[in-house]
Amino acid sequence: MDVMTRIENALAKAVGYAAQQGGPPRLAAAMHYSVFPRGARIRSRLCHAVAAACGEDSPALTDAAAAAIELLHCASLVHDDLPCFDDADTRRGKPAVHVAFGEPLAVLAGDALIVLSFQTIARGAMRAPQRLSPLIHTLSRAAGAPLGIAAGQAWESEGKIDLAHYQQAKTGALFSAATVMGANACGHDAEPWRRLGELLGEAYQVADDLRDVVCTAEELGKPIGQDESHGRPNAVQLLGLDGAIDRLNALARNAAASIPECRGARDLRSHILTETMRLLPKELAYRAA
Amino acid sequence: MDVMTRIENALAKAVGYAAQQGGPPRLAAAMHYSVFPRGARIRSRLCHAVAAACGEDSPALTDAAAAAIELLHCASLVHDDLPCFDDADTRRGKPAVHVAFGEPLAVLAGDALIVLSFQTIARGAMRAPQRLSPLIHTLSRAAGAPLGIAAGQAWESEGKIDLAHYQQAKTGALFSAATVMGANACGHDAEPWRRLGELLGEAYQVADDLRDVVCTAEELGKPIGQDESHGRPNAVQLLGLDGAIDRLNALARNAAASIPECRGARDLRSHILTETMRLLPKELAYRAA
Repeated sequence: MDVMTRIENALAKAVGYAAQQGGPPRLAAAMHYSVFPRGARIRSRLCHAVAAACGEDSPALTDAAAAAIELLHCASLVHDDLPCFDDADTRRGKPAVHVAFGEPLAVLAGDALIVLSFQTIARGAMRAPQRLSPLIHTLSRAAGAPLGIAAGQAWESEGKIDLAHYQQAKTGALFSAATVMGANACGHDAEPWRRLGELLGEAYQVADDLRDVVCTAEELGKPIGQDESHGRPNAVQLLGLDGAIDRLNALARNAAASIPECRGARDLRSHILTETMRLLPKELAYRAA
Repeated sequence: MDVMTRIENALAKAVGYAAQQGGPPRLAAAMHYSVFPRGARIRSRLCHAVAAACGEDSPALTDAAAAAIELLHCASLVHDDLPCFDDADTRRGKPAVHVAFGEPLAVLAGDALIVLSFQTIARGAMRAPQRLSPLIHTLSRAAGAPLGIAAGQAWESEGKIDLAHYQQAKTGALFSAATVMGANACGHDAEPWRRLGELLGEAYQVADDLRDVVCTAEELGKPIGQDESHGRPNAVQLLGLDGAIDRLNALARNAAASIPECRGARDLRSHILTETMRLLPKELAYRAA
């Protein structure tokens, strides 16, 4: 089974548990709507790629780890789109959850997806219980305070923003969790994998900044110019267009170079270089060639 | 050390982790504000009482389990008070979190407290890793969908409300988690403890309905008459004042009778009867005497 099918199946299974009998049907519908149809599933694919490079020995646990990261990511999108944050009307080309289901169910769908993320890991680790603890530690560090995505979003409510901490927490945390949990799920020492996630998180941030400036709202499936209208820092503003593209290239090379020695290191290196360059908006691809 | 001190210490330790260097200070402050100063800590005390009855052998894990339940409870209060739900201005006699810190930090403090709840369990289980899986399963069932507190709150967004499921999820779920996790933390078979939590959750709901009708806002530290103004079901409305008090008495007796045989069963039975009757507003205590 290819990785993308495994990712979608694991997510469908997890969201299916939350929709079991006895629960409020509209909450289950809002959770499903938050997760499907799929986005790029970049973080999940990264988790799978690392697990494959580590010589994956427990596919059910890799599936659960990759799903948990994606559920957390979806939860953060639902909450970030709320009127009190970005007040975004669209996401992935369709109405945002709070527009489609109302604000109360958007708050609760986000909450329940955070919980489901932890529950999915616990279910996946039934046959490898000794790997549960590091996975829960990694996931909670990436999700909460002081360094996870909730903290990342909260920096926008501070009078004085710490830019490095902001970006590392808001974007880098889940990328690091993806690489570390890919290794955790195989019982490998995971810390050597953290740097790869951090660099890829930064690369993703730069690519996102480029898209925010270059793409149309239709291409993006969400509003454009959000950084400028919310006064958020943007790499294009800081480095110029060419400077930002150079930065993305350098980050991809450093990321590939950071991969620890392991069975599948060579394949993973070329995967990382290809995938990172795919993040570039197609309008700019010729400039990086 | 007495139980209340243990509870407060464990919560302070957990919230302290979230306030470590590198995070946004206002988020850490909002999280602290959400948890302190203390409420009655009923769910945490129940968790400790069950662990004591089971012959507690891992106090650090009991502390973590009791703290995790309280953190989840605090998260649900912060989110329930948001403008899109109860729009409550006060809680525990002080401004609600969204009033004191703004809506964005109230959403994020709730999110980060949910995460901290799972993280606290994982930290507490470092020396008893084989007990982590049942604890995470119990906590996630009590927190999410279809049967946890997020689902309970979401029933209020359904066109047709399932009253039994609503109350069991909104209030019963965390009480059941408190008894089950008290047993989980001692490595005991936990399912026989679920019924006790369910009955106490129902008792608490009836007592809360009585307080909503009988108490003043000053006594309660939050707005009164919330059930009527939000069109929520209330036991006093359904059973009358005496009927609701009779129901509370019966639930306390059934709860005491449901306690499985264990070393501390007798002490726990009298603890349950006393504590449940303490839930009654003082204006009504003479009626139950």
